Amino acid sequence: MTSEPEPATGAAERRPRVRRGLVIVNTGEGKGKTTAALGVMFRAWGRDFRTRMFQFIKTAGARFGEHRAAERIGIPIEAGGDGCTIRSKDTEQAAALAAQQWERCKEAILSGEHDLIVLDELAYVLHYGWVPTADVIETLRRRPEGMHVIVTGRYAPQELIDFADLVTDMRVIKHPYRDQGIKAQLGIEL
Amino acid sequence: MTSEPEPATGAAERRPRVRRGLVIVNTGEGKGKTTAALGVMFRAWGRDFRTRMFQFIKTAGARFGEHRAAERIGIPIEAGGDGCTIRSKDTEQAAALAAQQWERCKEAILSGEHDLIVLDELAYVLHYGWVPTADVIETLRRRPEGMHVIVTGRYAPQELIDFADLVTDMRVIKHPYRDQGIKAQLGIEL
Repeated sequence: MTSEPEPATGAAERRPRVRRGLVIVNTGEGKGKTTAALGVMFRAWGRDFRTRMFQFIKTAGARFGEHRAAERIGIPIEAGGDGCTIRSKDTEQAAALAAQQWERCKEAILSGEHDLIVLDELAYVLHYGWVPTADVIETLRRRPEGMHVIVTGRYAPQELIDFADLVTDMRVIKHPYRDQGIKAQLGIEL
Repeated sequence: MTSEPEPATGAAERRPRVRRGLVIVNTGEGKGKTTAALGVMFRAWGRDFRTRMFQFIKTAGARFGEHRAAERIGIPIEAGGDGCTIRSKDTEQAAALAAQQWERCKEAILSGEHDLIVLDELAYVLHYGWVPTADVIETLRRRPEGMHVIVTGRYAPQELIDFADLVTDMRVIKHPYRDQGIKAQLGIEL
């Protein structure tokens, strides 16, 4: 851990910068994993990056703030289908949907048509073994040079953490749902 | 800590939802504090929230991805002036700039013209005592009902954590700058 403030971006901006595709993992029990990935997408869009997000777990057809916003600025967010959750009664179906979604991701990653791809909740899916971590790492290894990939979700497997360049653990200090019974807020969490 | 997956947003969507303005704090040594705030701004924009971001610390005139993106969609991001950092040679000037910026924030918070205000790096500024935490908490207490405020930055003071509804600690597991000497990437971190 450093006690330095955020990187001195002013000075950094003036130095030549080598583009290096990063594999970023946002994991942990806290809030902000998907949200930080959305923040990077937003920033990347400001730099005219070709960006795409694939969602595992989350409900197909959901029209949350991020879907509305992404649609407005032309970033595709592709949902992986309803019922893709461990709480689903049909775990086999959930696993099949996740595997299908991963095939789409893999194609997109290897296509070379994107600068940034977000694989939302993939870590969770890997944890449950619905998609093999080795296949994901192999695909990331074969990705086009300079391409950034963000994986979010709880329980990121150690092999993925070992492979990644940047890993952040989002920890709950205080949670309004857990601590005060406040429901998720539109425009903030949904 | 819960071992539940993310909230079952499908079901939650169907239940009536009471709007409740949240005070959110993103703190810790890791990446993603500002980035997650940008993600919420993006989501909020998708819900047509009136949103505004004030930056402490960061360089005035910086044209990072987030500034470019925010400008395109008409969200004002207002920088607090150059040199507003503890690394500045002139700490007195840094403190004065932070105090000035806080006065602008306060006015915006109390104006009732916004649904979401992001106070980027304010926690850091509070830690150094450049703005009194008590004044911030008092202002947040007096904010219009339903207004959400996000404070980011390292070293969030305990009083602010106690007052907030949602607090996340972003922890570094692996950092490309620290661990591999990779510079911050355009479109991802800048």
